[in-house]
Amino acid sequence: MIFRQLFDFSSSTYTYIIGNPETSNALIIDPVKEHTKQYLTLLEQLGLKLTLCLDTHVHADHITASGELKRKTGCQIAMSKDAATSCVDTHLDDGQTIPFADYKFTTLLTPGHTNDCACFYGEGRVFTGDTLLIRSSGRTDFQSGDPIAAYNNITQKLLTLPESTLVYPGHDYKGMTVSTIGEEKKYNPRLQAKSAAEYAEIMNHLNLAKPKLIDIAVPANLQCGL
Amino acid sequence: MIFRQLFDFSSSTYTYIIGNPETSNALIIDPVKEHTKQYLTLLEQLGLKLTLCLDTHVHADHITASGELKRKTGCQIAMSKDAATSCVDTHLDDGQTIPFADYKFTTLLTPGHTNDCACFYGEGRVFTGDTLLIRSSGRTDFQSGDPIAAYNNITQKLLTLPESTLVYPGHDYKGMTVSTIGEEKKYNPRLQAKSAAEYAEIMNHLNLAKPKLIDIAVPANLQCGL
Repeated sequence: MIFRQLFDFSSSTYTYIIGNPETSNALIIDPVKEHTKQYLTLLEQLGLKLTLCLDTHVHADHITASGELKRKTGCQIAMSKDAATSCVDTHLDDGQTIPFADYKFTTLLTPGHTNDCACFYGEGRVFTGDTLLIRSSGRTDFQSGDPIAAYNNITQKLLTLPESTLVYPGHDYKGMTVSTIGEEKKYNPRLQAKSAAEYAEIMNHLNLAKPKLIDIAVPANLQCGL
Repeated sequence: MIFRQLFDFSSSTYTYIIGNPETSNALIIDPVKEHTKQYLTLLEQLGLKLTLCLDTHVHADHITASGELKRKTGCQIAMSKDAATSCVDTHLDDGQTIPFADYKFTTLLTPGHTNDCACFYGEGRVFTGDTLLIRSSGRTDFQSGDPIAAYNNITQKLLTLPESTLVYPGHDYKGMTVSTIGEEKKYNPRLQAKSAAEYAEIMNHLNLAKPKLIDIAVPANLQCGL
């Protein structure tokens, strides 16, 4: 399996490419529009053909490259069934195996950061978008965010995965690239909350600034960035 | 094998931690002084004890954490035999197996970016420092840099490794995290030079600004950052 993690400096977003050297099929998770050319060049150099583009949610901090990548490669686009995006080809349900992928990845719907959050689990890895970050978690104060749902989904759907599962998040702001479920269970400070209510108390007092791009990114992402 | 890649935003430096879950021994490559606390916390959370700190060369763009890590953990420090650093415990020769490491890594001395560059090869990976970067290579215009030596060492010692070898560089400025020897052979624009002289021609005309920290970092790093 060819596996690449890429980083966007302006939004601190991680993008992932997973390719099958046998069939040459590849999927991409959370691509950033400004890097479309970089992804296409890398895919070509790796001898891969993009068949699927996944977004973990409707992002507020960057514009997705999904629409642009579909135009250029003919790939399919898939997202949570709760994403209000008519440009998406497949709306994924909880537990659904991801289509057009050579490796088995299962959709875990994890609303909380936004109502349309999904994580993708397979091959000993979980791609957690903004639901679970390394020693942190996605804010829950906009786009139908809900700290109670976030806590329940993180604890019931993510922390119940095997402890050795590698956690690949949608962002990191401290230069970390990967974690494990076991580590996050033990050392994620927010997940030491004893209840959903205690977690909500933490999340409701983060006092974070509004994302700079939210008024541009959200409407653009509802159109797959086009 | 526990493997972690960490990133320093201010100098775009990659640091690597390699740990053995059986023995709990770990080594670190190219640690950045400002992140000493982050490394120690992570090592503790991973249940690892630092036994060895490697620097790929005397850096000009950041101060090494090696001295600080040795003070805090009692780890050994190793570098190329050509590094003029009396604080180093082991000066590594070309082909030498890295001591105090649970996995077999071989030292490849690759002067060129600086006279004291070393790469570390083992477990299907090569840690290339500034000798070989993803689709690029380390500048050769200071600290006894030598483009002819760089070309010869890259082509004779690195590009002759198995093509599937994962390349983990000392820096990246475009959000790439890993490459392979096969890719760099084919797609690294500088390595398309047909001779050492042609490579030197490219390297002698890069017209790069002097690294901001060089006058502080180099003397500090000759003392292991202390």
